[in-house]
Amino acid sequence: MTHHFRQTRRVQFAETDLAGIVHFSNFYRYMEEAEHAFYRSLGYSVHDMPGDAPGSAVGWPRVHASADFRKPLRFEEEFEVELLIAEIRAKTISYVARFWKEDGELAATGKMVVVCVSFDSGEKRMRAVPIPAAMREKIAEAPAELLAAPVSPAS
Amino acid sequence: MTHHFRQTRRVQFAETDLAGIVHFSNFYRYMEEAEHAFYRSLGYSVHDMPGDAPGSAVGWPRVHASADFRKPLRFEEEFEVELLIAEIRAKTISYVARFWKEDGELAATGKMVVVCVSFDSGEKRMRAVPIPAAMREKIAEAPAELLAAPVSPAS
Amino acid sequence: MTHHFRQTRRVQFAETDLAGIVHFSNFYRYMEEAEHAFYRSLGYSVHDMPGDAPGSAVGWPRVHASADFRKPLRFEEEFEVELLIAEIRAKTISYVARFWKEDGELAATGKMVVVCVSFDSGEKRMRAVPIPAAMREKIAEAPAELLAAPVSPAS
Amino acid sequence: MTHHFRQTRRVQFAETDLAGIVHFSNFYRYMEEAEHAFYRSLGYSVHDMPGDAPGSAVGWPRVHASADFRKPLRFEEEFEVELLIAEIRAKTISYVARFWKEDGELAATGKMVVVCVSFDSGEKRMRAVPIPAAMREKIAEAPAELLAAPVSPAS
Repeated sequence: MTHHFRQTRRVQFAETDLAGIVHFSNFYRYMEEAEHAFYRSLGYSVHDMPGDAPGSAVGWPRVHASADFRKPLRFEEEFEVELLIAEIRAKTISYVARFWKEDGELAATGKMVVVCVSFDSGEKRMRAVPIPAAMREKIAEAPAELLAAPVSPAS
Repeated sequence: MTHHFRQTRRVQFAETDLAGIVHFSNFYRYMEEAEHAFYRSLGYSVHDMPGDAPGSAVGWPRVHASADFRKPLRFEEEFEVELLIAEIRAKTISYVARFWKEDGELAATGKMVVVCVSFDSGEKRMRAVPIPAAMREKIAEAPAELLAAPVSPAS
Repeated sequence: MTHHFRQTRRVQFAETDLAGIVHFSNFYRYMEEAEHAFYRSLGYSVHDMPGDAPGSAVGWPRVHASADFRKPLRFEEEFEVELLIAEIRAKTISYVARFWKEDGELAATGKMVVVCVSFDSGEKRMRAVPIPAAMREKIAEAPAELLAAPVSPAS
Repeated sequence: MTHHFRQTRRVQFAETDLAGIVHFSNFYRYMEEAEHAFYRSLGYSVHDMPGDAPGSAVGWPRVHASADFRKPLRFEEEFEVELLIAEIRAKTISYVARFWKEDGELAATGKMVVVCVSFDSGEKRMRAVPIPAAMREKIAEAPAELLAAPVSPAS
């Protein structure tokens, strides 16, 4: 059972803006990249995850995403995205994200709520469904003390 | 005194993803585009807004941005971003954003908190400063009933 | 018969980079935005253009795109994309693009070759097909002198 | 003396479009990412490379970039960018890029010409300058046969 994932990433030139720092919209992309890498670490692709019914597949659109910005990330900086599972409900997962700068300081924190949906061939719209059992067995909520207090990976 | 701004925008191809809809990270860009257009409508540029001291300038980095997603925006859809001032404090402005689909349905809602900062030549870091008086006189908080109940522009 | 299209666009903050100018990759997006607006001006969507056979549809993936950069575009600058049809062949269209700055100077020139493809339900891969007759009747190659000599819209 | 650089990269979700493949504008970003990683492999940052004069710095804006597209890159595909130095002139470097799919097929080829510029404090505009000697000693043009015939890394 996993409740935690870490990934290192380098800031690319096209991700900066004329203020000389990473444009804030890229933090949401970094958060999603870490989420997808987390699924890969469990043996899944976000785009083709098997559902409970044989032959079915589920997807994970986000219904909420937020971020609080503390310190900028700069060009070529190697930062770490720390992803924690804050809550697992029947059909949704809530993630908390922390963006750690090279020097161990916190650049930003984030939140993301994703919902498990099914794409039935007969339907045009997505429909929320329970998290597949096989996936559910692999994940757990992070301990409260881990969620409460961000600790730098450098410490 | 203005507390409200509306802007129409068309979804571009590069803003979609393989799910066939606008990638969620673009909603934060749309929100910022509307904010900057709002400043232009007041006679300002976000990048070169005069501060209170002669010759000084202020900027508006965001310290928080969030969005809740209800219905997808699709390629070539002409949607409206509605921006409201939710709160004005000494050094910050909180915006509420609503993204309206062509058919009058709500695609998403958002929030953004921006802080007024000064870039003094002698300093390396940004410093929060009071909103310039000339700007402060032009803006107001939106009425509570407007903030409470999203109403479709089509209704 | 049309061989020419012009579109005005304002530089957005997220399109700049830490050099303080538009990141070069956005010129290709601007070029594509103008191409899609050109199709809309003819009554078509790039994503759902009717093919010759009843009920069929064609698409227009690009097989080549290039740009030469002369002068930077800056934040909030209102520039013009000028799109010309350089050549029409049985299954491809070659476009020339010019990016004009607010002051009438040439920021960049570009080229793009798009191929008409069909997505048949029985096939997994795209297949190049002749440009639909209805579309072909609406477009023409630009005169050689127009292609040869860029003239500022300001002159 | 180096004339060749290879880098592996995974396609991210936000880089795809509604056609289900990588949006073509991202190939130019991938090419630039590889270029910057190449400079890092030589001990430099593109943004802060020492010039010949003590305390001076040079930058490398692109004056040309093109790409020819053969096969699409897909979500989560791990592809390789191969960067070769095609030509070194007094003030410019021409790169050739090849984008290799996981299965060893060629997705695209590209070209990029970058010019060495100086940012003097007294000047507002960039000025082309000779490639710094220390950098010049580290790089070489790729052999003609390597430039002529793309060979899959898988072969």
